[in-house]
Order: sequence, then C-alpha cells, then structure tokens
Amino acid sequence: MRSPVPDLIHGLRCLSSILSKAENHCGNRKIDPDALLKARLYPDMFNLTRNVTTACDSAKFTAARLSQAEPPRYEDNEASFAELRGRIAKTIAFLETIPDAAFAAAEIRDLAVPLSPEGTARNGRTYLIRFGLPNFYFHLATAYNILRHNGVPLGKRDFLWAS
Amino acid sequence: MRSPVPDLIHGLRCLSSILSKAENHCGNRKIDPDALLKARLYPDMFNLTRNVTTACDSAKFTAARLSQAEPPRYEDNEASFAELRGRIAKTIAFLETIPDAAFAAAEIRDLAVPLSPEGTARNGRTYLIRFGLPNFYFHLATAYNILRHNGVPLGKRDFLWAS
Repeated sequence: MRSPVPDLIHGLRCLSSILSKAENHCGNRKIDPDALLKARLYPDMFNLTRNVTTACDSAKFTAARLSQAEPPRYEDNEASFAELRGRIAKTIAFLETIPDAAFAAAEIRDLAVPLSPEGTARNGRTYLIRFGLPNFYFHLATAYNILRHNGVPLGKRDFLWAS
Repeated sequence: MRSPVPDLIHGLRCLSSILSKAENHCGNRKIDPDALLKARLYPDMFNLTRNVTTACDSAKFTAARLSQAEPPRYEDNEASFAELRGRIAKTIAFLETIPDAAFAAAEIRDLAVPLSPEGTARNGRTYLIRFGLPNFYFHLATAYNILRHNGVPLGKRDFLWAS
C-alpha cells in the first residue's frame, strides 16, 4: 500500500491553518476563544476542540495500525488554539517517523474495521478506505463547519489547501 | 490507478440511507421536509439539497474526468427527499458504466486540480487525493452535519456504512 502519511499530513496542515484563521478572527472581533473552542452543532456532538483532537487521533491511529508503529499517547488537555496547533504538530511529527516501507504489507494484513457490519472484508485496505480516511475527513469537515456556523470567514480553499 | 468508483458508490449509498432516515424523522415528527431540505449552517453555505447534488456531482466529475467518460448532465431541480435519492441513484447508475480499465492511465494523465495553489502537481492522482475525495467527503459530512444540527437522530455508523 502506498503510504497514507502525506495525505494525512496535508489534511492536518489545512486544519492548523484554519485554526489560525479562527484565532485571528477572535482577536479582530474581541471574541472569547472558548466561544469557538467549545462550540458544537448539537448538544450530543463533539465540540471544536474534540473534533480537532479526534482528527489528530484518526490520523495517528490510521497510520499506526496500518504500519504497525507504536502510537504515542496524548493527554487530551488542549485548551487554546495554540495548544491545538501543538497537538497537530506533535501528530505530524509522529507521522513523519513512519517510513513508506512500513506500509508495504498493510493492504492485505488482517485488520478489523471499526463500526463495520458483519461480512465486511477485514484487511488494511478496507480499514483505510472505509474507516480511516472517511472518518479523518469527517472530523476536518465538522471542525470547518462549526467555525463557519459561528461566522469565521473561511472558504473551500481553506479546507482543501493550507494557506 | 485503481477505480475510485466503489468508494464513491459506497459514500453515495450512505448518503441515500441518511436521507431516508431524515424523511422518516419528518414523518414521525410532523416536520415539513423543506425545513430540512433548505436548512443550512450559515447564510452563505449550501443548504442540504445543494450539498446532496454537489456530492453527486463531485462523484460524477471525479470519475468522469479520471476515466475520460462523458458525464451526463442533470438539471438540479430536485425538491424532495425522494427526488434527491433519485439523483443519487442516477449518479450511481452512471458510475457503474465506467469499467475499471478506464482508470488505468489516470494516475499520471495531465489534469488540473481545482482551487490548488501554483506549483501543485497537475495529474490524475493529485486530482483524486487533493480534490476529488476530500471534496466528496466534505459534502457528505456537511449534509450529515446539517441534519444532526436539526435534530435528526443519526450516528457515525450512518456516515460510514449505509444501513
């Protein structure tokens, strides 16, 4: 399997850039950062902070499980935009330690696919395309949607391409 | 390049299933379907209907541009949950006409990547992984988020696996 690390890092860099724009927006408009960091689209959905840490963990576990690397543990105690960008940076630094060759056998290695119905093929390829990537993009898009819903000026280009 | 058609069809089937649940929710709670079909997260964002048609078009154009198939034109006149599921079904039927072999040369074929900064590699692989798939998942996630924001009972399993 081709390493998914470049795609995961690309998405995390877009997220980091989006968070910087949100933080600047708070500064410009005298908005308490917590108004965005703790915002959510519905009471039982994750807030912005947890969508960011979950996107990081989705990238970390996707790469670690496929490459059989040992994933680092993080404490989930981020409480500011700067700390969330730090979490992203730590995650990227971990991803960068995994060599492309570590994914060589991932496609066909036996791997359970979270939340999947019975009968789903149990291997690295299914894990990546039916869980790892869609779940990663889900949390990136939800972080973006929470910020747009709260008036932060962002566009599709910010979601697709870090600036 | 491996055909992206199975992944696109899988995502569209999840979306169709989510729309059925939303329609049932309207029936159960005496909600005017337009309250959901025209809902959006912010005034200048797409509403639910347009996120669904855009997800369909994202799948259609991603597959068509990579395989050099001629994409069908649709009129964007869907006004009900049933019509949106019809749009999804038409899109899936088109995707199913594209043979795997049509993607054989797609990876390295010259292809511009929408919204990309100058210097971005211009080829089919970059088109798929930096625009086609992230943009497709963005509109699936935003459709899901609009419905969750409006109280439709859905979970991550609905996003990942059609039921």
